[in-house]
Amino acid sequence: MADTKVYRASTFAPVNIAVIKYWGKRDAKLNLPTNSSLSVTLSQDDLRTHTTASCSPAYQSDSLLLNGASQDISGARTQACLRELRSLRKTLEDSDSSLSPLSTYPLEIVSQNNFPTAAGLASSAAGFAALVRAIANLYQLKSTPTELSRIARQGSGSACRSLFGGYVAWEMGKEEDGSDSVAYEVAPASHWPEMRAIILVASAEKKDVSSTSGMQATVKTSTLFNERITNTVPKRMEEMKKAIAERDFASFAALTTKDSNSFHATCLDTDPPIFYMNDTSRAAIAMVEAINANAGKTIAAYTFDAGPNAVVYYLAEHETSVLAPFKAILQAKDGWEGARGQSVTSSPLPAEPEVAASRLRNGISRVILTSVGEGPIKTDESLIDELGETVA
Amino acid sequence: MADTKVYRASTFAPVNIAVIKYWGKRDAKLNLPTNSSLSVTLSQDDLRTHTTASCSPAYQSDSLLLNGASQDISGARTQACLRELRSLRKTLEDSDSSLSPLSTYPLEIVSQNNFPTAAGLASSAAGFAALVRAIANLYQLKSTPTELSRIARQGSGSACRSLFGGYVAWEMGKEEDGSDSVAYEVAPASHWPEMRAIILVASAEKKDVSSTSGMQATVKTSTLFNERITNTVPKRMEEMKKAIAERDFASFAALTTKDSNSFHATCLDTDPPIFYMNDTSRAAIAMVEAINANAGKTIAAYTFDAGPNAVVYYLAEHETSVLAPFKAILQAKDGWEGARGQSVTSSPLPAEPEVAASRLRNGISRVILTSVGEGPIKTDESLIDELGETVA
Repeated sequence: MADTKVYRASTFAPVNIAVIKYWGKRDAKLNLPTNSSLSVTLSQDDLRTHTTASCSPAYQSDSLLLNGASQDISGARTQACLRELRSLRKTLEDSDSSLSPLSTYPLEIVSQNNFPTAAGLASSAAGFAALVRAIANLYQLKSTPTELSRIARQGSGSACRSLFGGYVAWEMGKEEDGSDSVAYEVAPASHWPEMRAIILVASAEKKDVSSTSGMQATVKTSTLFNERITNTVPKRMEEMKKAIAERDFASFAALTTKDSNSFHATCLDTDPPIFYMNDTSRAAIAMVEAINANAGKTIAAYTFDAGPNAVVYYLAEHETSVLAPFKAILQAKDGWEGARGQSVTSSPLPAEPEVAASRLRNGISRVILTSVGEGPIKTDESLIDELGETVA
Repeated sequence: MADTKVYRASTFAPVNIAVIKYWGKRDAKLNLPTNSSLSVTLSQDDLRTHTTASCSPAYQSDSLLLNGASQDISGARTQACLRELRSLRKTLEDSDSSLSPLSTYPLEIVSQNNFPTAAGLASSAAGFAALVRAIANLYQLKSTPTELSRIARQGSGSACRSLFGGYVAWEMGKEEDGSDSVAYEVAPASHWPEMRAIILVASAEKKDVSSTSGMQATVKTSTLFNERITNTVPKRMEEMKKAIAERDFASFAALTTKDSNSFHATCLDTDPPIFYMNDTSRAAIAMVEAINANAGKTIAAYTFDAGPNAVVYYLAEHETSVLAPFKAILQAKDGWEGARGQSVTSSPLPAEPEVAASRLRNGISRVILTSVGEGPIKTDESLIDELGETVA
């Protein structure tokens, strides 16, 4: 009788939102970046990917199911991750003949996000981090998260940062083979656990330019880009690490907003220009500026990825001052349910920026309240049963 | 009996729209720029300031009436222009005792624009050019336009370019006193008379940041700005002069759009960020890109000053291809009257950019059809009568 055993391992993995942005590849195949970046890992209570990896000699071929839909895994990026992980497993098997030859079995991977796909959040980071972490668990690899980050990076650049919790840096590295282009923990979530975020999810609008093609166009055509990667970002990386080490929110905020704007400036300087922010994004910026002005100090920092969603970081102690003005405008939207949102009063700013309220009401579909969180978490909750069937 | 003679001289002066942008002062008092710039002077049939300068020993004090409203002329900029012009006149008077001492008489200046003030067009350029030109005429100065440009620059930087027709460069200069920061003609309008422009005038929205304070904030805070002024613009200035010399529209257009985007990129990289373009501007850009895609070559180029108005340059031979798609969307707006607009058919693009039509219809209040034009033109049409009274 043929071996039909199904091997399984599951993990949760987090989303991360960069405060020093990744934009530009020096090697598109290996996802090697033109600059280092730094992110905050967000709590998996609010945003996470749940992935089960399994393998069995009974499976016919590799497969990936994401949110119930079968995915094409023939792409070079997914293949690179699977190849590297199998290679590490093979090394283990070669050194220990008691190990089953999992590296030779087809893989079945099932993945689910706990947040709406339409939200336009960078789900590929959590997705590839979860995929790599789940297979590494399945293969019982001894690799450190930093070692795995080298693999996850090849799936999606920013995925390498989702292998850690807290405050995470991705060093660009110098080697041509990308061996030193890896992520590491700058500080655990417990170092500065008061960090909070509200995400203003913009109403679905077709994204003009994918981040992959967008960043390559910037590298090729922006005359200002080289200054950003050569001088601006390296300096900010060091300043940001210091701000985090010292839990200095004002510096953290200044660097976060400046770096987001710098990144979008190089997008605008691309030929043809790339616009990820829109008038709704501008209204969110105006609100953050007004919230800080009202507080008389910097208590909120905005950042935008390759899309119009605003992520606003703030500290727990300023939750009411930051959230109440947004709630006054957006209380009819989803996302305020739950202890954090329900406990916040709705209170407009004494001087609300012109047209900000109407633009946000028209342009924002929901809010997500979250905070700094942990890295991938192993779980026994499996999305695949012992027979290899997907759990509905 | 006291001398009560009223001396008068009048001029028309044009608006200019830069294709290589002026943004940043190295000396705020003298309006000395951080980079050279280059503009196209627009036809005075469509946009002009009409100014009469007069002086008389009977006048009580210097005064300026703009579009019927009395203006404060005590500002350092206006005072610098008046002082410099009086000084030149004084030199003439000192060398020729037969000349009346006009330099000692109070000045009365009356000015009118033929375009709506609400249009948010850079009327200060035409305004100061007309003021300087009219007073120079009144004083019968022998100064060349380039010499006068040094004076107009102190009123409003870009005004120095409105002392010429056609294609005009403003060299930033090197001297601390600004003596070499002057404008000159790169090519007369007759060199490339086919240049046309449609201005999409955005609905009035309060400008967040004046260009004067905005450019100083950029100089101080943008980390990308130095690259723009040191390398990007000097290279583009030379390329733009070559494109104009060779009447190479594709190069002219590429440089124009890139430099507009570069300028706005440094605005976005300013802390706090400055946004002059909005979603309506983005829709105009999308339309220009679609018009070029539809033509299979570059026949239109957009540029934005410190506001959301789009200026789209094109050549006469492509008037229908460029204007018809805009007319299909904006035919209900003012500005299509007159031979040029009326003769254009309204014809939508085969593939109109998503939401462009609705955004333009909501965001654009009127269009202005214009073309490259001449420099200041002396006129006998006086806005002040022989008694010193304003002509209604």
